[in-house]
Amino acid sequence: MTELELIQAICQGLPTNPSVVVGPGDDCAVLELGLPDRFALFKTDAVVEGVHFTPDAPPAKVGHKALARCLSDVAAMAGTPTAALITLGLPKKFDPSWVLDLYAGINALAARYAVAIAGGETTLNPDRVAVSVAIIGWVQKERCVLRSGAQPGDAIFVTGELGGSIAGKHLEFEPRLVEAQWLTEHFKIHAMIDLSDGLASDLRHVLNASRVGAELLAEAIPISHAARIRARETAEARYAGYESACQKTPLQAALTDGEDFELLFTVAPNDAVRLLDAWRTRFPELRLSCIGKIVPGEGITIRDKYGVRRLTERGYIHFA
Amino acid sequence: MTELELIQAICQGLPTNPSVVVGPGDDCAVLELGLPDRFALFKTDAVVEGVHFTPDAPPAKVGHKALARCLSDVAAMAGTPTAALITLGLPKKFDPSWVLDLYAGINALAARYAVAIAGGETTLNPDRVAVSVAIIGWVQKERCVLRSGAQPGDAIFVTGELGGSIAGKHLEFEPRLVEAQWLTEHFKIHAMIDLSDGLASDLRHVLNASRVGAELLAEAIPISHAARIRARETAEARYAGYESACQKTPLQAALTDGEDFELLFTVAPNDAVRLLDAWRTRFPELRLSCIGKIVPGEGITIRDKYGVRRLTERGYIHFA
Repeated sequence: MTELELIQAICQGLPTNPSVVVGPGDDCAVLELGLPDRFALFKTDAVVEGVHFTPDAPPAKVGHKALARCLSDVAAMAGTPTAALITLGLPKKFDPSWVLDLYAGINALAARYAVAIAGGETTLNPDRVAVSVAIIGWVQKERCVLRSGAQPGDAIFVTGELGGSIAGKHLEFEPRLVEAQWLTEHFKIHAMIDLSDGLASDLRHVLNASRVGAELLAEAIPISHAARIRARETAEARYAGYESACQKTPLQAALTDGEDFELLFTVAPNDAVRLLDAWRTRFPELRLSCIGKIVPGEGITIRDKYGVRRLTERGYIHFA
Repeated sequence: MTELELIQAICQGLPTNPSVVVGPGDDCAVLELGLPDRFALFKTDAVVEGVHFTPDAPPAKVGHKALARCLSDVAAMAGTPTAALITLGLPKKFDPSWVLDLYAGINALAARYAVAIAGGETTLNPDRVAVSVAIIGWVQKERCVLRSGAQPGDAIFVTGELGGSIAGKHLEFEPRLVEAQWLTEHFKIHAMIDLSDGLASDLRHVLNASRVGAELLAEAIPISHAARIRARETAEARYAGYESACQKTPLQAALTDGEDFELLFTVAPNDAVRLLDAWRTRFPELRLSCIGKIVPGEGITIRDKYGVRRLTERGYIHFA
């Protein structure tokens, strides 16, 4: 049983109640708590030593990553984060200064976005550090963006550059809160998701939720410098005889590497050019790429100079 | 550095914002989200295999415990739970039926209290199962009960019977949501906490928050059957030569064993008798005991037939 199959089995028959506007399956749960113009957003996300960070990762960056992952999910709903709780699993022997540095990373990021760290707990996790973050936020009801709103003809955009996050970005990325709020303030965003599992995998979440397909342009995919460097190093390693070295091309890395934490969103085709122009004025430092379009049907095709192929790379699947 | 010292260091300098009514240090964080008559409650709590449950514990009971601990914290604020998210850390090789049984336990308890399970995530935790629950609830502003409201002269009450929870109750306890809501509907409850670390330890949290002391009556402490049985078995083990066997008397077990998940609360002395009478009518199956009174000063004294002693047992401290 894969993680995905397990999650599908779990999600059948979960108890619900009238407060739940959107339950499992989007970037955050969306709750109606009684505020006339706002929904509450609710999300948890965990990082585990040896899985999401190495034991030698700087603790402040681990803290940054733990909170930033949750903030990125709030961004994907065009929300504003309010308060977070930190659940910290620690082995019996821990280094207090490591823990305080972890919190320094959490606190610095929280302060930057006016997020309160309203409590949490420490617990014993004997073999390794684990940091689970729970967050509450809010979004104006009419600006809440789900994964399920993509429509045939929509232009597909991604922020930033993709692939190779493991080289460092996964510990340092900035959640796209400001950008997402600006987008929904000025444009009708049909669907949005943050890229955590990899473009191919996360785009598929949008397509499945919206019951549509997508056609990507290979040359429009923004490939990060880190993805190109890693591909070159991998090629050199293979040339030197390390056959087991990862065989991803830079494009494959951009399509399937996880933890980019950029935004992917869709807008009506008539908005695409105006949005690109306005973006470049507002966020001149952050690349925005139109990578393709939503089409009827299902699945992803990618067009390159040799023609159109079906994209089978599914990105990173945990427990695969 | 103990867990307590670490937590104190962490709590200095956490970022906050105007939404935070009560931050770290009570059973739940209390948030002002803009509802005129309600506060939001926000809490996380985790259980870890080998720490909070044994590998052979029935998974449905593990799920029950994981959610019930959070619900018990909501009860301690006199709140109503709304929605929970489940973060499930699993080793690479897991038994899907174990996980589905875990959720059966979570779901049954959630449904009983109309709590939505609104999502969550699974993550790799290579060595052991960990279940972290995040919960949102609410409380009428004027009925929210903190740890800090105890006043000299108050009568101190506890629900149920204490000690020996490890024999089974820790996996099966019922969160005292109905009782706490009834209490605040009919009486002015000054302070309340749920007993997770042990009476002596948790009462001290109330005393420190309220800047008062307490005088307990030894003979009024409700000692559970399980605590008496365990003490007898321990005495027999010691008689048989197992010197290392735990040396707690039944009273010490009731004072210091963790995971009772009963409510401890204080009310003005004039309300005490009326409350006891009304309780016995409303909850005839659940014992309620007046165990002592709040006094000026600090710390806990306990009176038994030999006189008054200072209580030094602090209950269970993690990482001690």
